[in-house]
Amino acid sequence: MSMKNFKVTIAFDGGNYGGWQIQQNSMTIQQAVQDSIKKVLKTRHKVTGCGRTDAGVHANGYVFSFKTESDIPEKGLFKALHIALPDDIAVLEVKEVGLDFSAQFSAVAKQYMYQFTNTESRNPFLDRYSLHYEYPMDDKLMDEAAKHFLGHHDFSAFCASGAQNVTSDRRIYRSEVIRDGDIVRYYVAGNGFLYNMVRIMAGTLLYVSAGKIKADSIPGIIASGDRERAGKTLPPHGLYLDKVFYDIISHEKES
Amino acid sequence: MSMKNFKVTIAFDGGNYGGWQIQQNSMTIQQAVQDSIKKVLKTRHKVTGCGRTDAGVHANGYVFSFKTESDIPEKGLFKALHIALPDDIAVLEVKEVGLDFSAQFSAVAKQYMYQFTNTESRNPFLDRYSLHYEYPMDDKLMDEAAKHFLGHHDFSAFCASGAQNVTSDRRIYRSEVIRDGDIVRYYVAGNGFLYNMVRIMAGTLLYVSAGKIKADSIPGIIASGDRERAGKTLPPHGLYLDKVFYDIISHEKES
Repeated sequence: MSMKNFKVTIAFDGGNYGGWQIQQNSMTIQQAVQDSIKKVLKTRHKVTGCGRTDAGVHANGYVFSFKTESDIPEKGLFKALHIALPDDIAVLEVKEVGLDFSAQFSAVAKQYMYQFTNTESRNPFLDRYSLHYEYPMDDKLMDEAAKHFLGHHDFSAFCASGAQNVTSDRRIYRSEVIRDGDIVRYYVAGNGFLYNMVRIMAGTLLYVSAGKIKADSIPGIIASGDRERAGKTLPPHGLYLDKVFYDIISHEKES
Repeated sequence: MSMKNFKVTIAFDGGNYGGWQIQQNSMTIQQAVQDSIKKVLKTRHKVTGCGRTDAGVHANGYVFSFKTESDIPEKGLFKALHIALPDDIAVLEVKEVGLDFSAQFSAVAKQYMYQFTNTESRNPFLDRYSLHYEYPMDDKLMDEAAKHFLGHHDFSAFCASGAQNVTSDRRIYRSEVIRDGDIVRYYVAGNGFLYNMVRIMAGTLLYVSAGKIKADSIPGIIASGDRERAGKTLPPHGLYLDKVFYDIISHEKES
């Protein structure tokens, strides 16, 4: 029997889930996805996610992969998942890929986005999907500060204390603050992220806007490796796994 | 003791509420507002809303008014309500107005908005706030059809059966379909609306897009007064009370 390997891109509202990875005490995205695949293909399949996400974190483009002996075509799987998945998880794309592809190990970079609503009044329709900040935000100054994260650094100062990593070195390819009316978004892409790293980076940029941290002191904070000098960890409901980058050419299914 | 009259504009996510008006079996916006005012002013105040809204309907700009013997200033009331109101209700504006102002009886027109997400995949972040429609929507044709609602008509064909009204005559000032990328919005302003009228109008426009009703047959459907000939009633989670219009000059507080 021949084997297929599927790469599936989803968006989800993480507000009702305990993150990606299956666990005992709460519903997770991985569990919901595996339950839906079982409904569609009638047998249990283990799916591999591109990485863990924290409870409450959203995704514009999360990627998982799974192998199956089913001969379901791409389009058929897309339509079946479109119906089977819960309302807060949406399938965006289904692609058949080579058997060597893994959503986790083939990923070369990830992009996160942290979203702020910058209005005096709250916006009830964005309340679950962004951090409301009612004082003026200086997005230009935040963007200037964000540029200091670019390149290869030891990001120990931007990692939740207690996290265990072989190395805290990471490379940042994009670090940019963009305002769109009342919405301020921080985009950061890199080859990997430490635990809570993006939420601490975003918190540090917010402190820069508030005048609590100077934009040009970021390189010193990075060099210090001191978590205490960076800003606070912002809440999960403003954070999105935005995009996962793959060297897709090497994994494309030959037909 | 002198009396003040406040006009308060709020936005709300109606998804968790049984509409505006206080009732026995579910939490309502009016109840939540009165509870918050009691927290702020320490005594119970009855508030008057600009009109009823159905369970699950949202608002970008709902208006209520209430009289009080408290000497709290506009700004103080704004800040206190900003904190006291639940997360899904936001205060947008507080204005002291003349004692003759009533959010209900001084209203001269209202504008509603019905929001569609027109994408093949669902959008988890708009799922609670718009009707997802996965087939192509012809917004130009819908707009053409919408223009037939303009003016003074008997809208019996666009009223939920069983509703009791003295007259079904209403005047429509604006009726417009606007696409903004994947979002299609129907705006309709008028001097009043029958029960479910906007949800039936929006459903009729969707049928026009789907080819089930011809754009130029709308005048005939209006003339027939036959509910069966109009489109179906769309669900409440796409509907917003967008704006309430007042002849505000005559009610402005003289100082």
